Amino acid sequence: MAKQKIPATPSIRRLPSYLHIIRQAEKEGDEYISGTVIANELNLEPIQVRKDLAITGIIGKPKKGYPVHALITAIEHFLGWDSIRDAVLVGVGNLGSALMGYQEFQFHGLNIVAAFDKDPKKIGSTVHGVPILPLDTMELQVRNLGVRMAILTVPSVAAQETTDLLIKAGITAIWNFTNVKLKVPDNVVVQKEDLSSGYAMLCVMIQAKKLEGR
Amino acid sequence: MAKQKIPATPSIRRLPSYLHIIRQAEKEGDEYISGTVIANELNLEPIQVRKDLAITGIIGKPKKGYPVHALITAIEHFLGWDSIRDAVLVGVGNLGSALMGYQEFQFHGLNIVAAFDKDPKKIGSTVHGVPILPLDTMELQVRNLGVRMAILTVPSVAAQETTDLLIKAGITAIWNFTNVKLKVPDNVVVQKEDLSSGYAMLCVMIQAKKLEGR
Repeated sequence: MAKQKIPATPSIRRLPSYLHIIRQAEKEGDEYISGTVIANELNLEPIQVRKDLAITGIIGKPKKGYPVHALITAIEHFLGWDSIRDAVLVGVGNLGSALMGYQEFQFHGLNIVAAFDKDPKKIGSTVHGVPILPLDTMELQVRNLGVRMAILTVPSVAAQETTDLLIKAGITAIWNFTNVKLKVPDNVVVQKEDLSSGYAMLCVMIQAKKLEGR
Repeated sequence: MAKQKIPATPSIRRLPSYLHIIRQAEKEGDEYISGTVIANELNLEPIQVRKDLAITGIIGKPKKGYPVHALITAIEHFLGWDSIRDAVLVGVGNLGSALMGYQEFQFHGLNIVAAFDKDPKKIGSTVHGVPILPLDTMELQVRNLGVRMAILTVPSVAAQETTDLLIKAGITAIWNFTNVKLKVPDNVVVQKEDLSSGYAMLCVMIQAKKLEGR
């Protein structure tokens, strides 16, 4: 498989936090926001914030900072969050249900149109307004809906099999919450979510505090 | 608040994936593993993998690679995953329940000893073997248990209030799954988990694929 040449992973990962802060500034009626204000809010260096924001194509003005409205537009456009993106979710367990109820997603244009599960007790109900459909209709339904993105929250043993079906149905982007490294063709992108990454960060911060002698 | 001077965030975030692969190599009886093998497995550049692993203090041998057992020990030691760390979880909703059932954590020394919720229907039951205790006993129980780490999965409106109580009870490390930027004293570390970060990555990969003309 070709390597994904995506520049500046950590910069991209920070953009949603910036967006959150800048939207709050907009709500408060601010016309401009400085990189330093954003940096202080997130305990980052101002130079880092300015570098990160530059990838969206926007440059701040000396002393004034960034025009709030244009900055929001630039970040949203860079992320493709300025248009609605339909997705299906597969595997309505605790994590799947939690994701369906995650309210931030509505601000990012993510629209979960249907979820699939094989549990007869769940099928026919809705979770946070999303209908739960039978897993064995997934391929057909995804094709009919014309959806291209899937959120994968099935048990790990079912991950590859489900992925193969999703790809047959036309899915080209998978947000993978299982711990399986999925095999996919070149035209399909996968973002693997690993909760252990955040835990590793926390543990290293704890060790660093100890070294500081606290 | 002082800035957390933690080097190489993305390197740290990748260590758990490396560990996963290296443990599999150990299971298969391999004595050595090369940076290139790890890199191919994760679609990274070998030089990146070698740089990342160097932060744990280990250097590979030319041609042979890294001794598997020593590499596992080095990563685990760097992350503090070679000893058991007790934690409590607060807020037993869907996300909280999902985290209590997340099996990877047992390989990282994370031991959730108790969970707290205010729902009388949940109190007294167990989720994935973890007892659910009344929220109003939290401060006392955390103090008695001597636990220092808390996983925060309460609704955002309750995040700061719960944090204040946890800190009073002796908690010094918080894994924050709410979207609130918590105010904490200098001696407390917080890792904020933002699911939007991964979604941003996925969206940028989709945009990049389109530019490639697929």
